[in-house]
Amino acid sequence: MRLPDAVHVVEMLPRDGFQRLDEFVPTDEKVAIIDRLSETGVDEIEISSFTHPKAVPTLRDADEVAKRIERRDDVAYRALVPNLRGMERAVDAEVDKVNALVTVSETYTEKNVNSTREAVLAGMDDIVELAHDHGIEVECGMGTSFYCPYEGRIDPEETLGVVDRVVEAGVDEVTLATTMGLANPVEVSEMFSAVFERHPDLDVGLHLHDTNGMSLANTLAAMDCGVDRFDASVCGLGGGVVLAEGLSGVGNTPTEDLVHMLSRMGVDTRADFATVETVADEVRERLGLGATSHVLMGGTVENVLRTMGSDDGGTA
Amino acid sequence: MRLPDAVHVVEMLPRDGFQRLDEFVPTDEKVAIIDRLSETGVDEIEISSFTHPKAVPTLRDADEVAKRIERRDDVAYRALVPNLRGMERAVDAEVDKVNALVTVSETYTEKNVNSTREAVLAGMDDIVELAHDHGIEVECGMGTSFYCPYEGRIDPEETLGVVDRVVEAGVDEVTLATTMGLANPVEVSEMFSAVFERHPDLDVGLHLHDTNGMSLANTLAAMDCGVDRFDASVCGLGGGVVLAEGLSGVGNTPTEDLVHMLSRMGVDTRADFATVETVADEVRERLGLGATSHVLMGGTVENVLRTMGSDDGGTA
Repeated sequence: MRLPDAVHVVEMLPRDGFQRLDEFVPTDEKVAIIDRLSETGVDEIEISSFTHPKAVPTLRDADEVAKRIERRDDVAYRALVPNLRGMERAVDAEVDKVNALVTVSETYTEKNVNSTREAVLAGMDDIVELAHDHGIEVECGMGTSFYCPYEGRIDPEETLGVVDRVVEAGVDEVTLATTMGLANPVEVSEMFSAVFERHPDLDVGLHLHDTNGMSLANTLAAMDCGVDRFDASVCGLGGGVVLAEGLSGVGNTPTEDLVHMLSRMGVDTRADFATVETVADEVRERLGLGATSHVLMGGTVENVLRTMGSDDGGTA
Repeated sequence: MRLPDAVHVVEMLPRDGFQRLDEFVPTDEKVAIIDRLSETGVDEIEISSFTHPKAVPTLRDADEVAKRIERRDDVAYRALVPNLRGMERAVDAEVDKVNALVTVSETYTEKNVNSTREAVLAGMDDIVELAHDHGIEVECGMGTSFYCPYEGRIDPEETLGVVDRVVEAGVDEVTLATTMGLANPVEVSEMFSAVFERHPDLDVGLHLHDTNGMSLANTLAAMDCGVDRFDASVCGLGGGVVLAEGLSGVGNTPTEDLVHMLSRMGVDTRADFATVETVADEVRERLGLGATSHVLMGGTVENVLRTMGSDDGGTA
C-alpha cells in the first residue's frame, strides 16, 4: 500500500455544512467559526458559495463572510463558484482559490443546478480566464463523480470525459466528489488509476462523504493511487440532498476523523489534531449538534485511556 | 492494493454482543437469533463462551444454547473457551471450533481474566490436545493485540511473541483482536506483515472493533497483507470494557457494514448481503437497539436511490 508523506485537508464546513442547515447561521457566527477553523492548521478552507442568494439562501452572506474573516497567510481561502457571475463575486471578494463546480450527472445538473452539464462546461474557460487574470487558482469540484441520487451509478467514462474537458479548460486542480457517499474502495481505486493514466501530473483530490461508512477506507484506496488532497467537514456537517430526504448518517467525512486517522498513520496533514478535536467540539456546541464523529464520541487513544484511568502509551 | 477473491466473515454477535448487554437475553431469544444468523450465509458463528457462569453471567446458558440451535452443515459453530474446563464443556457441546482466548496485555489478563498470561499460554497445549482429539478446530483469539485499556499501546514484539507461542502449541488459526478499536491501518499493516514474515502459511484473522472509525480502513490494510478472515458483529453489538465506562460508539464492526463493503468491492464473503441487512434489522428490533451501522442508517445504494425515487444503476 502506497502512502504519501503528507496530504492536504480542505475544510468544507463553512460551505458544505452551513449550506445544508435548515437555519441560516448568522454571519457573525460563520465568521467566528471560520476564524477558529483557520487556527487548526488545515491549509485550505472553502468559506462559502457565490451562488444566487435565492438558490442557496443559507449562504446569501458569502460576500460579507469573505470580507470579515481573518485571513492567515498559511491558509488558502476558497469559495464555490457555479458560474461566471459567481466568479466575478469571487474576484471582488479576493479569495485565493475557487471551486468551479461541475456535476457529472446530467439529471442532477438539471434538477439541482438548473442548467445543463454542457452549459456549465462551456462556461469553464471564462471562469478560468477571469480567475487566472486575478491570480486566483481554480479547483474544479466534480459532483456525482461516482453515484447520482437520480441516475444511480455514474459510468466512469462519463466522469473521465468531464475530467478531460476541465483539464482542457485549464483548471489547476480537479476534485472528484463522492457526493452520495456511496462509492467503495474498488470504485475509487479504479477511477483514480484511470485519471492518473490520462493525466499523470494532474493535481487530483477526493471530496469525501460517508453515507456508507467506507470513506476512510476510500481515503486509503485513493492515497494508494497517489491522491494527496481530501475535502472533509468538521463534525461531518454537509451533504445536502440525501439528508433533506430524511436519511441519517450521510454527511461529509468528519475532518476530525480524517485528520485523526492520517496523523496516527504518520501522514502529515499540517493540521494539528488536538486543535481540530477542540474546534470540532466547539462547533458541535455552537451549532447544537450531537456527537457526529468517532472522535467526538471519544474514540481516540487519549480519551479511551483517560476514561479507563491509564496512561497513553501510544505512539504518534 | 492486494485484494483476496474471498474472505471468511465470522459472526460474533452471540458471544461478543450478548456478553456485553446488561440484561440477560433469554435462551429462546439467543437460539432464535443464532438460527437466523445461520441463514445469512456467513460460514462461521461464535455462539457463546464456556466461561464460568459467575464471570460472564449473561452467557451462563452457553451449554443450553449449543444444544438447542439448529446446526447447518455449511456453518462452523465456534465457542470461546478461556481454559481447559471451558474446553471440556465445548467438547460436550459438540462445537465445530473453539476460540481459545489469550490476552496479550498482562494487566488486562490479571484484571479481566483473573489469571496470568503465562498461565493461559501454559494451558494452551492441553486445550489443543483435547480439541484435536475430538476433531475440534482451535482458533486462538488474541485480545489487546494492539492497544490495552490499561497499558495503552502494546509493544508489537509482545504480540508477535504470543503468536509464536500459540503457533507452537498447535492452534489451527490465530486472530489478532483490535480489542480497544484504536488500531490504525499502518499499525495493522505492520503487524500482519510481521506475522506473515514469521509464519508465512499461518491462517491469520482480524477481530474488528470500531472505536476510532478506522475498522473498514483496517480491513483494507489487512487484506493488502493477505488476511482473509474477519470477526464482526451484527449491529456492531459488542466490545464490553470501554462501553461499560460510558463511551459510546465503540462496539464491534457491524457485520452488515463489513459485508456491504466487501460485496460492493467484489470480494466474496459467502454471506448474502441482502439477508445480512434484513437480519441486522430484525436484531435491532428484537434487542431494541438504535441504527448502529451505516447500513441500518440507510447507507446503501439501494436505500438511497429508493428514497430518492430512482432506480439502482449500481454494479454489484
